[in-house]
Amino acid sequence: MPEQPTHPPGRIMAAEMAEQPAVLRRLLDEGAAPIRQVAAQIAARGPRFVLLTARGTSDNAALYAKYLVEVELGKPAGLASMSTTTAYGARPDLRDVLVVTVSQSGGSPDLVASTKAAREGGAVTLAVTNNPGSPLAEVSEFHIDVLAGPEKALPATKTYTAELLALFLFVQGLRGQGGAAAEQLPQLAAQVLGRQAEVRALAERYRFAQRLVLTSRGFGYPSAREAALKLMETTYIPAQPFSGADLLHGPLAMVDNVSPVIAIVPDGKGGEALQPVLDRLRGRGADLMVVGQRDQVAAASAGFALPAGVPEEVQPILEILPLQQLAYEITIARGQDPDAPRALAKVTETH
Amino acid sequence: MPEQPTHPPGRIMAAEMAEQPAVLRRLLDEGAAPIRQVAAQIAARGPRFVLLTARGTSDNAALYAKYLVEVELGKPAGLASMSTTTAYGARPDLRDVLVVTVSQSGGSPDLVASTKAAREGGAVTLAVTNNPGSPLAEVSEFHIDVLAGPEKALPATKTYTAELLALFLFVQGLRGQGGAAAEQLPQLAAQVLGRQAEVRALAERYRFAQRLVLTSRGFGYPSAREAALKLMETTYIPAQPFSGADLLHGPLAMVDNVSPVIAIVPDGKGGEALQPVLDRLRGRGADLMVVGQRDQVAAASAGFALPAGVPEEVQPILEILPLQQLAYEITIARGQDPDAPRALAKVTETH
Repeated sequence: MPEQPTHPPGRIMAAEMAEQPAVLRRLLDEGAAPIRQVAAQIAARGPRFVLLTARGTSDNAALYAKYLVEVELGKPAGLASMSTTTAYGARPDLRDVLVVTVSQSGGSPDLVASTKAAREGGAVTLAVTNNPGSPLAEVSEFHIDVLAGPEKALPATKTYTAELLALFLFVQGLRGQGGAAAEQLPQLAAQVLGRQAEVRALAERYRFAQRLVLTSRGFGYPSAREAALKLMETTYIPAQPFSGADLLHGPLAMVDNVSPVIAIVPDGKGGEALQPVLDRLRGRGADLMVVGQRDQVAAASAGFALPAGVPEEVQPILEILPLQQLAYEITIARGQDPDAPRALAKVTETH
Repeated sequence: MPEQPTHPPGRIMAAEMAEQPAVLRRLLDEGAAPIRQVAAQIAARGPRFVLLTARGTSDNAALYAKYLVEVELGKPAGLASMSTTTAYGARPDLRDVLVVTVSQSGGSPDLVASTKAAREGGAVTLAVTNNPGSPLAEVSEFHIDVLAGPEKALPATKTYTAELLALFLFVQGLRGQGGAAAEQLPQLAAQVLGRQAEVRALAERYRFAQRLVLTSRGFGYPSAREAALKLMETTYIPAQPFSGADLLHGPLAMVDNVSPVIAIVPDGKGGEALQPVLDRLRGRGADLMVVGQRDQVAAASAGFALPAGVPEEVQPILEILPLQQLAYEITIARGQDPDAPRALAKVTETH
């Protein structure tokens, strides 16, 4: 196809989504060794707790890392509430704490300020960014470059999956392990992204939706949150992510047969833990679309089956791909431009 | 007024909301001393990191405690992801960690299991419940009773404010301080609750709302989350809470002049940090209702001013009161019963 003289809506987001297999491949080929080195140096410092700091899409990558740290590394972890440092001037004692700050741009002033404060408070600080020359990378003791290349669309896509993979490799490195579980991901990601026609058909269901509920458990929960964020910032449909357990504590009351629910069902323990929630949703007549485990997709109103045989802890890197495409396709169907959502800026200047 | 022979919708929730000044008073009079004792014993153990575990309304109380621990106690804190323990069998090293589990009923099997696992992992465990005979209180090394009396309505109200106050007194106790900042709260709560007619007028605005966005920062953010949960479980209107900074990272795109926004504006640093977010929302033509600081209420489309001169860290105990009433009034106006939302059970049996 010759280069388009015009700029059709979503051209940039579409190109960046399509780059993801190559970005993952580059990170495995060129990023794994430096990540392993950083992980070895940090492991030698013996951190006992991990705090993760981020905003927006990167906060969902941070949540994924929290599950990895707790489940695979066996250390307690938390997500930082940045305003305690930036608004209230809290200066906690952070000796023996690893503070990981995740940011595509590395440019948000509040992230830079909180990382600086964490380092002064005794923490080992690590920045995970797509910009090694950024202020955040400079104030952190350690830095991991996710090597995704410049991201120009406002909705972050390739930097999200690159952050997930970088964080996976980092946590494996802390355990003294390699990233074998991730080796297949570039090829599988290409397969999944090649099924965009399936996603386009699913998008028809939601073109006129007034609201969406997303749910998952365990490793799939960050995917539910990131999918909701992507849907909100591109389609403008209110999309609410709940962990399956939280959904049963109150919000279930607002789900009825006109509220579409998108469930991300990991192939593994997270999916098993979600089963009672899926049963309750079906009992309430909810319209259920499933992304993930094949049998669960077959049992749902609609869905997108992901490849079998992938270790659960790296499934999130595939789960988000059809959901990014779904946000894109609904947005195009609604006549909006996914590249430039109203009201947003690429580097968000929160303080 | 003679006792009603019938059971009008919302009778139980209304009675429990109205009990809150008395519940707070009882907790200050009878609960403060035992809480101080528990705090002294735990402080002597020298925990360095605090993990909070809860679901639903109690999770919002836990988030409030996280801010207190970081800002007032100067220790790093995190909210636990329960599924890492209950679904994935994670057994992190929790020596030097205080694990606080907050639960109205103390009966959820997953909270009991995760607290048991935390204790086995070396944590100091504390249960904060409204039921000293509960399984959760039994498996925890320490227990704080919030003394709210039996709660029968499905939407939790008096147990939420009692949990907030108990957690405030506990964190003050860890610092070796008393709870003087809380002494005025019962009287102020009664004043605030006495202005229900103002709330009823505000409820008219939202009777036909399709969706609501709530926002705040710092100590007010748990109030935004709890108000959203209360609105969802009673009115069934999708209500989305965002910290002000997160709202600018994506979700702002979906706010327009038909999306009502409720901002909780603390009188203090949280409110100041929210100012740029309020400016952006006004710039987008959002309909803005403010609960909190008087001048911010005057500048908004509508609102509810809270008493001045209350320390910011205890303002959440007042902020939620008009928002509980708002959920109640909208629900009544829509012809539903706030006491018994569809699909919910009082003790949620998540595993």
